[in-house]
Amino acid sequence: MLPDPHLAALDAADPLAHARARFLVPDGLVYLDGNSLGPLPADTPALLAKTVAEEWGQGLIRSWNDAGWIDLPVALGAMIAPIIGAEAESVVACDSVSINLFKLASAALALRPGRRTILMEAQDFPTDAYVMQGLARLAGVTLKRVARGELPGALQDDVALLLLTHAHYVTGQVHDMAAMSAAAHAAGALTLWDLSHSAGALNVQLDRDGADFAVGCGYKYLNGGPGAPAFAYVARRHWRDCEPALTGWMGHAAPFDFAADYAPAPGARRLLTGTPPILAMRALEAGVATFDGIDMAVAEAKSRRQVQLFAAGAAEITGISVDPLPQGRHGAQCIIRHMSARRVMNALVARGVIGDCRPPDAMRFGFPALTTRFADIGLALAALQAVLASGEWQAERFVPVGMVS
Amino acid sequence: MLPDPHLAALDAADPLAHARARFLVPDGLVYLDGNSLGPLPADTPALLAKTVAEEWGQGLIRSWNDAGWIDLPVALGAMIAPIIGAEAESVVACDSVSINLFKLASAALALRPGRRTILMEAQDFPTDAYVMQGLARLAGVTLKRVARGELPGALQDDVALLLLTHAHYVTGQVHDMAAMSAAAHAAGALTLWDLSHSAGALNVQLDRDGADFAVGCGYKYLNGGPGAPAFAYVARRHWRDCEPALTGWMGHAAPFDFAADYAPAPGARRLLTGTPPILAMRALEAGVATFDGIDMAVAEAKSRRQVQLFAAGAAEITGISVDPLPQGRHGAQCIIRHMSARRVMNALVARGVIGDCRPPDAMRFGFPALTTRFADIGLALAALQAVLASGEWQAERFVPVGMVS
Repeated sequence: MLPDPHLAALDAADPLAHARARFLVPDGLVYLDGNSLGPLPADTPALLAKTVAEEWGQGLIRSWNDAGWIDLPVALGAMIAPIIGAEAESVVACDSVSINLFKLASAALALRPGRRTILMEAQDFPTDAYVMQGLARLAGVTLKRVARGELPGALQDDVALLLLTHAHYVTGQVHDMAAMSAAAHAAGALTLWDLSHSAGALNVQLDRDGADFAVGCGYKYLNGGPGAPAFAYVARRHWRDCEPALTGWMGHAAPFDFAADYAPAPGARRLLTGTPPILAMRALEAGVATFDGIDMAVAEAKSRRQVQLFAAGAAEITGISVDPLPQGRHGAQCIIRHMSARRVMNALVARGVIGDCRPPDAMRFGFPALTTRFADIGLALAALQAVLASGEWQAERFVPVGMVS
Repeated sequence: MLPDPHLAALDAADPLAHARARFLVPDGLVYLDGNSLGPLPADTPALLAKTVAEEWGQGLIRSWNDAGWIDLPVALGAMIAPIIGAEAESVVACDSVSINLFKLASAALALRPGRRTILMEAQDFPTDAYVMQGLARLAGVTLKRVARGELPGALQDDVALLLLTHAHYVTGQVHDMAAMSAAAHAAGALTLWDLSHSAGALNVQLDRDGADFAVGCGYKYLNGGPGAPAFAYVARRHWRDCEPALTGWMGHAAPFDFAADYAPAPGARRLLTGTPPILAMRALEAGVATFDGIDMAVAEAKSRRQVQLFAAGAAEITGISVDPLPQGRHGAQCIIRHMSARRVMNALVARGVIGDCRPPDAMRFGFPALTTRFADIGLALAALQAVLASGEWQAERFVPVGMVS
């Protein structure tokens, strides 16, 4: 186990330590689940209250113009863009990850009309698979899912789209975006990257690494609040020819002409569909603003150090295993395994250490760079050791209930 | 023009006059645009502040269970159901009208596999057409748009789905839901009703009138805030066989099993896709709660009376026309036409009378029953008469700017 003075020294030397003050993290809590729901930014309550009382309550319909509501999806896209290595105009905030996956995958199919296969990784986050299953059925194409190591070989000439999650939601393994994009392009396919577990966690470089399309999540590392709007990215070279099958009036070139026929807006704006959810957008705005002045390379390095320290400490505790061991580039999270993962996690939560579980046996702990102190690692490991050593996780009160971990 | 004492007497006798206290309508404003953005309910700021500070800020990830976040789409559906004449389990709150149109239209195509036409009304709200154009292209079916009077004759045996807006967004004309549903069913087609301008305005009876599917808007008459989540309805007879092509993990039978393959949740819950937007859902909750104890037949009758009074008064003012004249059953809105509609409306807004415009020449005024006083009609007509009589709308400052009216 790590001695506390060592962790205290790391906190003292942390160039991002100041960022924690941008959040309202409850006292006494070791919150290691920002990878599932980012904590509340300090500026969010006031921004949202103002939006409700003044913009909505007083401005009413006039606020679509006067308060800039109508441009929020594009303005937020421009704020998110530098966090993921993208041009401002390539990104819009809208809908959910699921919906945006559908839009961009349908656009990819339209760009590769002779090809009838969508390729993705087996064991990826379920919604990615469910969305592709629905799309494949409707469009009459095939969804092919293969293990990570078999992806390059599966890039046959019928593949229109390679869908990959950049950082895996359980294992934290990271794909080499440049290499996989190049392989896909060499095979004539396009790439769609799910950044749910890397936007705001890793130093993502979409433009540099040749991504065609990407989606990502607003409520995890971007701190936009529960169920926050997602974002979508289109590389500049596809601005003109990207034609999603899921189209709505906010993605029209001139929505307030109320024209009879759809005509796409320029660039990524065409990915908008329905009227943007302003309250949720404002909360996302405050969340994304917590990244002001943050160097994502520094953030990734900090999280990686924390993940490695946590994994190393956990490996010393009897009754758990660290599998896979975080090696090389890695998501800002770590899983440790226990046959009664859910009960052990419940016991940890009762002690104020909050992570989550993924079936069947993974306890997942996240280390977002803006909020996680090195001292939290020591506190979490001490609690884990105590829970396991005492056997308290076997108590009746830790029997799993509820749907969400 | 109507004498003020007459209007005051109508307000005094209004059985819904008490409902206005459920909202924070700015003093001195005659707000006749609740059909585009409902005003702020008095309970919304506190509910939202609590959701942010306590549920998100303190509860963090635990609130998915502890605060019931995970069930909000279904709980809100059950709250909306009685307003639209539906069983509680037939309705969920989710996504936008555009997205829900896509889901349900794709489900209809799957239920009528031999049929290759979607039929809708020409001149309907653009997003409905744009969504269907995208779906038709992806699914390889035909979108057919005909004038209102030609709809019955166009119900040929290739029609899988008849998509209709219950109350038209410009003219306020209302379809006979029972008759059109029966005609569609007689032709072997299913019906999808867009309730954007009737949910919360008219006495909608989806179950009674034989609707198969429906969608509706949360931010107009339901007062859920700008861009609030929409809702979707599936009649009980389709709970088992409704299979949208747009599927996500929240619509899975067991989302937290993280199963590899999609399996639909029971009933309307399968229409959920991504993680629900909790902040927006809470605002919608407060908005829908403004309908507690409201008899929609009484609400429709009040709005109809107000629309007729406004139209009759407007018809007496030089320089405008009322076309179409509201007759019979009608949306809770009225349009009057002027060749410089946008400038006249800008001049009205400067006088504190707020409606909106629809190209090319329509000024639209809404009369939601919960907030509109009969006295507002007199104030709006007086302002309109003054604006036109003085010619002030011709002033330079009323030249149209901005995208949204």
